[in-house]
Amino acid sequence: MKKLMECVPNFSEGRNEVIVEQIIDEVRKIEGITILDYSSDKDHNRTVLTMIGSPEQVREAAINSARKAAELIDMSKHEGAHPRMGATDVIPFTPVSNVTIAECVDVAKEVGAEIGSWGIPVYLYEDAATTPDRRNLADVRKGQYEGFFEKIKKEEWKPDFGPQEMNVKGGATAVGARVPLVAFNINLDTPDVEIASKIAKKIRHIGGGLRYVKAIGLKLEERNQTQVSMNLVNYEKSAVYQAFEMVKMEARRYGVNVVGSEVIGTVPMKSLLDVAEYYLQIENFSIDQILEKRLLDEQ
Amino acid sequence: MKKLMECVPNFSEGRNEVIVEQIIDEVRKIEGITILDYSSDKDHNRTVLTMIGSPEQVREAAINSARKAAELIDMSKHEGAHPRMGATDVIPFTPVSNVTIAECVDVAKEVGAEIGSWGIPVYLYEDAATTPDRRNLADVRKGQYEGFFEKIKKEEWKPDFGPQEMNVKGGATAVGARVPLVAFNINLDTPDVEIASKIAKKIRHIGGGLRYVKAIGLKLEERNQTQVSMNLVNYEKSAVYQAFEMVKMEARRYGVNVVGSEVIGTVPMKSLLDVAEYYLQIENFSIDQILEKRLLDEQ
Repeated sequence: MKKLMECVPNFSEGRNEVIVEQIIDEVRKIEGITILDYSSDKDHNRTVLTMIGSPEQVREAAINSARKAAELIDMSKHEGAHPRMGATDVIPFTPVSNVTIAECVDVAKEVGAEIGSWGIPVYLYEDAATTPDRRNLADVRKGQYEGFFEKIKKEEWKPDFGPQEMNVKGGATAVGARVPLVAFNINLDTPDVEIASKIAKKIRHIGGGLRYVKAIGLKLEERNQTQVSMNLVNYEKSAVYQAFEMVKMEARRYGVNVVGSEVIGTVPMKSLLDVAEYYLQIENFSIDQILEKRLLDEQ
Repeated sequence: MKKLMECVPNFSEGRNEVIVEQIIDEVRKIEGITILDYSSDKDHNRTVLTMIGSPEQVREAAINSARKAAELIDMSKHEGAHPRMGATDVIPFTPVSNVTIAECVDVAKEVGAEIGSWGIPVYLYEDAATTPDRRNLADVRKGQYEGFFEKIKKEEWKPDFGPQEMNVKGGATAVGARVPLVAFNINLDTPDVEIASKIAKKIRHIGGGLRYVKAIGLKLEERNQTQVSMNLVNYEKSAVYQAFEMVKMEARRYGVNVVGSEVIGTVPMKSLLDVAEYYLQIENFSIDQILEKRLLDEQ
């Protein structure tokens, strides 16, 4: 049985297409790998790449693209709305088919060791984390690039790989293993980022909200709107429709409306089928009723 | 990208397992085809087969299984509760992935021409129909096997392929192309079937409602509730969420509530992803963001 792993590296460049293409080219060179998606956001100044392949292929692709990002991106000049700490900001590995989360952890450690050998501090996170306080990416990334020059000196933030010293150009990188993540943003008809931030704080886990939801408020300069930008780290437990309804519920307090949402990158179909099942109040639904699921199972 | 087509031939034999297995074996012989399901009904004396493959594979499978059915089934001795006119009664082709309805029409015509060359009259129906009055399968099949010996003599019922003369042993066959049908029921908290019927009449095409929705009102005796039972014959044009919202809208008039819904049998994932896209107000969503869609494409 073919082993398939997903890898979704995030690079801190979303404005210069030439740089983005050179980074993606490193992945294209690897035979047999599938680039499912990549998209750059100018406000975030960030590119998110989704690729699938064998554990060996995604490991090689992650290493080569991170090496190119370290060469072409200068973090000391980076600006963007999205929190970030490195040229290659984060590299998560996710099981897709016939691989375990433990195999993803193994690949994460191999990639982390390689990046660390270039003089870039590396933190293992989520299921690859070496301590409980490194599980959460937001905790790892707290302080961001600018804050890391001090943060890294603390003993509890000694990197898992690489020097205990910030890399001025490349920053620091988080490498992890996790179950599939749904990146889901909700756009609001207010230009007031304070409101988006207040809503984000209310619906996310650390604020007393949904257990597996991480959220921040962002300004969408081009649209003169704001956004609650979320990561649903376990959509089977904290569902997409719950996050959506909770944002609407909080927005009401400010007389603010949801004008739309975005699903970023690739998601498992079950994450959105759950939404249909909820809103249509479907009784006794099974994912085996989906033609494509049956087809994948039978092949 | 991999092209996938579904074909659901109906054979007029549901009692003799040996014959059914010989027909299905013709499909099993074709490498790469996936048999999703086949089931025989003794009362109907009919077997329904669901298979998926490339356009070439399903064309070959449809032809070979129909040839075997023509060899083994004698329609002059057939009895069964389900309307039927031929040994292979009906062969619909449906797009699954990366194929158009026009490509399904092409395959339907090729299969029809082949079956016609065996001396079996063939009628093209639904999107493959050559005249508007042949679109509806029920109209084509009206009179059934027994009535066709006269019906076929009429100029308006000259077959699209094969002789203008009934085949005593093989009967006649309808070959068609259609978009996938979604069987979708909505349950109401009223025991009054009159209300369910009134809602059904208001939302269906012939009553002035949605273009591609067929609907009736039914009593659910065990639950002491009623149901609007629908066939959505083109969910891309008349969507599942539209049908759902229109039923709720009409139910309001009677102070009646929707208590749940049912999706019957297998449906394409897009039919339900559209629902999520609508309720979440997702901007710029593409089905290619679904991991399973991408995986099927790459295989």
